Amino acid sequence: MGVTAILGATVIDGTARPPTDNAVILVDGNRIRSISATNNAIVPAGAKVIDAHGKYIVPGLMDANAHLFGAPLPDLVLQYEGRYSDILEEASQIALKSGVTTIFDTWGPLDPLVTVRDRINRGEILGSRLFVGGNIIGFAGPLSPDFFATMNIFGADTVKRINRQWEHDVGSDLMWLTPDGVRSRVRQYIEKSSIDFVKYAASGHRDPFITFSAPAQRAIVEEAHRAGLTVQAHTTSPESLRMEIEAGADLLQHGDITGMAPMPETTLKTIVERSLPVAALLSTEKHQAWMRDHGTEAMRTLFNDNLDNNDRRLIAAGARLLLTTDGFVCGPPVVNHPRVAPHVKGAVDYPKRLGESHFLWLEAAVERGMTPMDALRSATSNIAEAYGQSADLGTLEAGKYADLLILDADPLHDVRNWRRIVAVMKDGILIDRSRLPIRRILTEEDPGAAKE
Amino acid sequence: MGVTAILGATVIDGTARPPTDNAVILVDGNRIRSISATNNAIVPAGAKVIDAHGKYIVPGLMDANAHLFGAPLPDLVLQYEGRYSDILEEASQIALKSGVTTIFDTWGPLDPLVTVRDRINRGEILGSRLFVGGNIIGFAGPLSPDFFATMNIFGADTVKRINRQWEHDVGSDLMWLTPDGVRSRVRQYIEKSSIDFVKYAASGHRDPFITFSAPAQRAIVEEAHRAGLTVQAHTTSPESLRMEIEAGADLLQHGDITGMAPMPETTLKTIVERSLPVAALLSTEKHQAWMRDHGTEAMRTLFNDNLDNNDRRLIAAGARLLLTTDGFVCGPPVVNHPRVAPHVKGAVDYPKRLGESHFLWLEAAVERGMTPMDALRSATSNIAEAYGQSADLGTLEAGKYADLLILDADPLHDVRNWRRIVAVMKDGILIDRSRLPIRRILTEEDPGAAKE
Amino acid sequence: MGVTAILGATVIDGTARPPTDNAVILVDGNRIRSISATNNAIVPAGAKVIDAHGKYIVPGLMDANAHLFGAPLPDLVLQYEGRYSDILEEASQIALKSGVTTIFDTWGPLDPLVTVRDRINRGEILGSRLFVGGNIIGFAGPLSPDFFATMNIFGADTVKRINRQWEHDVGSDLMWLTPDGVRSRVRQYIEKSSIDFVKYAASGHRDPFITFSAPAQRAIVEEAHRAGLTVQAHTTSPESLRMEIEAGADLLQHGDITGMAPMPETTLKTIVERSLPVAALLSTEKHQAWMRDHGTEAMRTLFNDNLDNNDRRLIAAGARLLLTTDGFVCGPPVVNHPRVAPHVKGAVDYPKRLGESHFLWLEAAVERGMTPMDALRSATSNIAEAYGQSADLGTLEAGKYADLLILDADPLHDVRNWRRIVAVMKDGILIDRSRLPIRRILTEEDPGAAKE
Amino acid sequence: MGVTAILGATVIDGTARPPTDNAVILVDGNRIRSISATNNAIVPAGAKVIDAHGKYIVPGLMDANAHLFGAPLPDLVLQYEGRYSDILEEASQIALKSGVTTIFDTWGPLDPLVTVRDRINRGEILGSRLFVGGNIIGFAGPLSPDFFATMNIFGADTVKRINRQWEHDVGSDLMWLTPDGVRSRVRQYIEKSSIDFVKYAASGHRDPFITFSAPAQRAIVEEAHRAGLTVQAHTTSPESLRMEIEAGADLLQHGDITGMAPMPETTLKTIVERSLPVAALLSTEKHQAWMRDHGTEAMRTLFNDNLDNNDRRLIAAGARLLLTTDGFVCGPPVVNHPRVAPHVKGAVDYPKRLGESHFLWLEAAVERGMTPMDALRSATSNIAEAYGQSADLGTLEAGKYADLLILDADPLHDVRNWRRIVAVMKDGILIDRSRLPIRRILTEEDPGAAKE
Repeated sequence: MGVTAILGATVIDGTARPPTDNAVILVDGNRIRSISATNNAIVPAGAKVIDAHGKYIVPGLMDANAHLFGAPLPDLVLQYEGRYSDILEEASQIALKSGVTTIFDTWGPLDPLVTVRDRINRGEILGSRLFVGGNIIGFAGPLSPDFFATMNIFGADTVKRINRQWEHDVGSDLMWLTPDGVRSRVRQYIEKSSIDFVKYAASGHRDPFITFSAPAQRAIVEEAHRAGLTVQAHTTSPESLRMEIEAGADLLQHGDITGMAPMPETTLKTIVERSLPVAALLSTEKHQAWMRDHGTEAMRTLFNDNLDNNDRRLIAAGARLLLTTDGFVCGPPVVNHPRVAPHVKGAVDYPKRLGESHFLWLEAAVERGMTPMDALRSATSNIAEAYGQSADLGTLEAGKYADLLILDADPLHDVRNWRRIVAVMKDGILIDRSRLPIRRILTEEDPGAAKE
Repeated sequence: MGVTAILGATVIDGTARPPTDNAVILVDGNRIRSISATNNAIVPAGAKVIDAHGKYIVPGLMDANAHLFGAPLPDLVLQYEGRYSDILEEASQIALKSGVTTIFDTWGPLDPLVTVRDRINRGEILGSRLFVGGNIIGFAGPLSPDFFATMNIFGADTVKRINRQWEHDVGSDLMWLTPDGVRSRVRQYIEKSSIDFVKYAASGHRDPFITFSAPAQRAIVEEAHRAGLTVQAHTTSPESLRMEIEAGADLLQHGDITGMAPMPETTLKTIVERSLPVAALLSTEKHQAWMRDHGTEAMRTLFNDNLDNNDRRLIAAGARLLLTTDGFVCGPPVVNHPRVAPHVKGAVDYPKRLGESHFLWLEAAVERGMTPMDALRSATSNIAEAYGQSADLGTLEAGKYADLLILDADPLHDVRNWRRIVAVMKDGILIDRSRLPIRRILTEEDPGAAKE
Repeated sequence: MGVTAILGATVIDGTARPPTDNAVILVDGNRIRSISATNNAIVPAGAKVIDAHGKYIVPGLMDANAHLFGAPLPDLVLQYEGRYSDILEEASQIALKSGVTTIFDTWGPLDPLVTVRDRINRGEILGSRLFVGGNIIGFAGPLSPDFFATMNIFGADTVKRINRQWEHDVGSDLMWLTPDGVRSRVRQYIEKSSIDFVKYAASGHRDPFITFSAPAQRAIVEEAHRAGLTVQAHTTSPESLRMEIEAGADLLQHGDITGMAPMPETTLKTIVERSLPVAALLSTEKHQAWMRDHGTEAMRTLFNDNLDNNDRRLIAAGARLLLTTDGFVCGPPVVNHPRVAPHVKGAVDYPKRLGESHFLWLEAAVERGMTPMDALRSATSNIAEAYGQSADLGTLEAGKYADLLILDADPLHDVRNWRRIVAVMKDGILIDRSRLPIRRILTEEDPGAAKE
Repeated sequence: MGVTAILGATVIDGTARPPTDNAVILVDGNRIRSISATNNAIVPAGAKVIDAHGKYIVPGLMDANAHLFGAPLPDLVLQYEGRYSDILEEASQIALKSGVTTIFDTWGPLDPLVTVRDRINRGEILGSRLFVGGNIIGFAGPLSPDFFATMNIFGADTVKRINRQWEHDVGSDLMWLTPDGVRSRVRQYIEKSSIDFVKYAASGHRDPFITFSAPAQRAIVEEAHRAGLTVQAHTTSPESLRMEIEAGADLLQHGDITGMAPMPETTLKTIVERSLPVAALLSTEKHQAWMRDHGTEAMRTLFNDNLDNNDRRLIAAGARLLLTTDGFVCGPPVVNHPRVAPHVKGAVDYPKRLGESHFLWLEAAVERGMTPMDALRSATSNIAEAYGQSADLGTLEAGKYADLLILDADPLHDVRNWRRIVAVMKDGILIDRSRLPIRRILTEEDPGAAKE
């Protein structure tokens, strides 16, 4: 790979700096060599040239929380057993196609995730850059009350065999252990796996129960830090959020959710003062109206006015938000599934549809008063910093990976312009988006038909 | 294949004739050339000789109703999708190993069943001789309230894709049709499939509801006969049994079940007068005592004192019974399954365990007053006749397939001697029973372990 | 009670005769003494006079099928145990208030129904005139899979105690019996109860299974006729409808439902030729559009385009339709109930809301091409004739009960004018509609609040 | 009421003192005036005399944890709504009859419990002396996933109306609040109710999730102590037990349950050193063997070898145990209920059957190595002390309530002798045990029969 020169665009580099008009970006291999005003730029002989006059260039978008496996539906989990990496590959390509060049996968089957991450990194397959968290420590696998209770339809062998592909010995049985017992299991998990960050459950998935006591949470955080990893928690209530912060988490995953009560003022103040990154599950006002009228009671326990008000308060107080979507592939077998359809199908601006969710997030952020520039940083540099990846990612600066989007309209002018992507570059390579996803699985029109 | 001579055994040939002591059986290829007293026998030069002095030879056993697919459990149906024929092969070998040389499979996934049947017939794989009925006309597939309701755990795509592998357009939607509509669908099914006999639902699977009206039942029977096939119905109540008989069924499948009421005397009389074959679900007295104390209410709706009394009355009245077991492979993932375990695990003399169930049936028949010779005929010649296969099967006579068992004790003396099988011959070939089943799937000790 | 004279209205008497303008109706006690043109009328001295000039008088409306008990929801069935008659009373008053002076209750708790019917007849309480069918022969009570499966939440004692208040020994266990057994039970039921007509299940409640064989259906019909009662069946499929007709039913209850297949042409022809009364579940086009988009799959199995087309074909062919609604009281605890809300709440023109459903029926009939006069007869004289009550009910003629409505606009001119009721007379008594229902139970605003 | 003299018995008074042979107990009104050796005793003239030579007298037994409401089964909760106090009265009489003169009811419908408690105290009705805890703070009512999920069978009105009779605003929604929010609600609850002690949930009912964070638990404990009440927690895991102790609970309710892990040694040490009362759910070895073989997986999560070993370790270490049973009335509608039957019916030595459970507890304690005298104190003085009631209860000493049992064999000699009760005195009154329970409700032979 030689040098590529992208000429003439306005570059919004994701730092605090104002945009650079008529810039020249030199890409050398998979990294940026330089960004400069045209006047000062020297394009090496032999460089491949991309004319981007009149265009806008931004860092590749990042999603601080997606689930490439898609919804862990009982039948799909069985149907695709042994082929999970095919599904992950499809998902990462759907994301890449829509401008998300980096994804932090925060819950999924560990081994296939690592396989796909490494194959992408080695350039063997196309896809968004992945960072993998594996299991949410303290949660059981997909065939469990934490996700989809199987109500005696499945045998214990099946349940165990599937769940352990997610749990890797840091499942819900950790709740029986002392803090020392939890520490020991987490340490083994980190040592044996090759995860990129640690996520644990501070509270339950549906109920606001607390999963781990304060000392157990501290033990998890210490083990993550000892291994040089960032750590985040799944929280759903005011008290579990406070506990997560006290335990020393680096990133508050959907820290804007406090369920049936508002975020306490003291917690909000702590978040702002310590500049704690909050991965916030923003959705558009249209979606919130839909949820108010059509959401199930269980959904509205978490996705309600408290969430909306928390987001507004966080933005007004200048908290550091991160784009986070819980995004997953919404192909026919998923969205038509009786467990998913009531929440997804027919929902207005459904905020978890991978490939679309990040655009909606950015729109929702601006709707709630965030400046366009802060929205951009929430989707790029804030995430890189929160995950300790800012040496390589998050801004367009010399030395960083050449992950960038070329838009044909200014996203700082109108947040809807984020959708006007004309090119995606990742690792210095221009992506042929028309080919993606290369192999359709969950997005196949009629997946059943192909079987016979 | 040359000629094999089996010398010296007492032959109980399954006809009305008394046993022949010290007999010589000549097997030529896959058929019996002759059976004669030793005095009269001439063993050709070069014949392979089997010394069976002191042994007893009986026709290979037949099961008028088994389900090689095993219990159609939701998770297994998905886990093994695309590999059903492997499961069927294992099952047919478990049956063969235990002396059942012919099985009438009365409900299962049609295409894999036909594939395995044909491969066995062509000698490509070992296994019991199969006759295949495909779907029970009027029943939906395994993921349906007729078998295992999936309670919104599965998507519609999954349910449809799985069920149609059983239904083949003669599923439960036939209940919406007129008799002519039913006739037309059944005709197409028979034409397109290569089934060996027809089975339809006269009543529902759990409830005593009637599935098809009298004219619809007649239409099904007529279509079967038109195609030269025997026809039988699934019945569970006095009235559905009466309707089946009036419709002209050739064989009453579990015709001894009348649920919460006894079999009417008039029905019993008709059965005896017309010599209608009744495939009877006998179980041992030990099992019945267990069922009385531990059976679920749903089970006891069908398996109760009415059934026991019906069996005794049928035997006393000289009805023509057939050995029928509903047998399926009871490997660990099946018997440990929450849907199956309450009925099977810990049950005394569980009567549907393939490989064991026929021995229990024979014991139960004698317990209820059947003569040992009638028991033998119920398990052999009666079945061959009822299914129209007596030209080839059911007795040890010249010209028939050489399917036979060699026992080392007299089954007419003590019914438990049926278990004392020392050799199984099918199609003229001595089976190496120690190898069976060749590939373990459902009988694998820990099927989950092998996956990782 | 003396004589009342209603002066000056246009009387549409429910017979084939054209309306009589400027008529005088004399009511003597609870019956009509005469109806005549004003010119010919003599109003007795002392008669109470009602001035109805400019008004329209029609027979009191009749509903061929309602369920006064309301939805038999498990919690309400228990909460109101021992007070069912209070609920029935409330329901009959809601109906009366809206102009339905006669109701045929086709499924409910027998003893409370009979009690309320008799109290109304004796004038002890206000309410629509009731005719009671008791149980649907062959169906189990409300806490059963026929209605609301209780999924192990209730004890067997509770289930049995509640269900027998509906079943009275003609429940679903009849499906185990022979035709003679069914006959005997039905005979005892008729003898012991004081029902006004017989209703049985020809097919199941949700599935199209057939409940009773042809001879069993004939036995039921014969027993009803032997006791001088009309008989009708619950049917849901083409074949169960045909069987009901062959069995000799007098009235086809929701005979327009044929589920997933259209009504066969031969059946339609038979209905028309024999002038068989079809109680038809018409709903407005608006409701049908809603159902198409929002109905559950289970609902659309029965309430679909086949039903709509059947209704259009029946009307076009001149079949004798009856207004039938399945109406029940839609108070807060019912319509907010999780088992009911998905079907009812938010439904457009929900067709089973007692007090409203008959207006919608009349509108739907006209939408489908019925003449206004035929619509009126469907709601009055057709029903009286079908139930054998035309000596007393169904038209405004001398000698009949003085059940009538006074409207202030012509219902033959615009079907919406049925709603413009200004007075309801039943049994010769003007009803004070503002008082009804006298005691609110299910229509109480917050029924829970009153408990503490 | 005058003076009663009980002459000649051996008195085991529940203190550390050895038994007094041939004693005289003088009872004056509802309290003990004196206990002395016969030599020293003066029986007042006119005293009623009870000859107890050869008998043994012990303090009335106490149960540190029972549920007089019985199992909160959904159908019974509805069926008996408005009559809960009748059920409580029956239960307290069943307990009294079997020698339990004092019960601490730790979860039930508050208002009826208080009513029955006060009526008993005022002598208006017979029954064990009650101390009432009301709701378990943090748990929802009986129609909730904490007890019996109603799976859409009940309407929201019903669920809310029933549950609030238990919750009194300290239900599971407290888990959404901050510690200050919890504190405020608990304070109001204590102020408005007249409970005798406070019980809260430290962990969930089935899962080992933590219900309240450490500061929230401290807030609850502080509020209880501020009101002068003892406080205890429901715990099910090692970590929730540790948190309860740190929060300052006075009594560890089923503190011997640690679920799927053993009690940590440090926790055990703390319990012993601080002499913390542990209300222990002992069951006999026979029952434990039954549970091992027949218990459901959910039951065995809590009732397993860890529990048994914890109990043995606690006894060996000299921990202060209290008799606690979770006892409830096991009448036919309860034990036959599908939700209860699998755990209770057929269980050997079922340990929660009110009226029997305390005898089994005492036997189990001795089986595990407790001395007979310690067993007696666990059932009497230990409980009185733990609940702060030792001024009045727990021993036979001058000035205390005259609650005592007369046995005809020595309970210190053979633990089975506890069953040999010949007389029960409570509040100085000899109870006519043959009359109890006075009004049978849940213990009625066929409760359904009485309804018609």
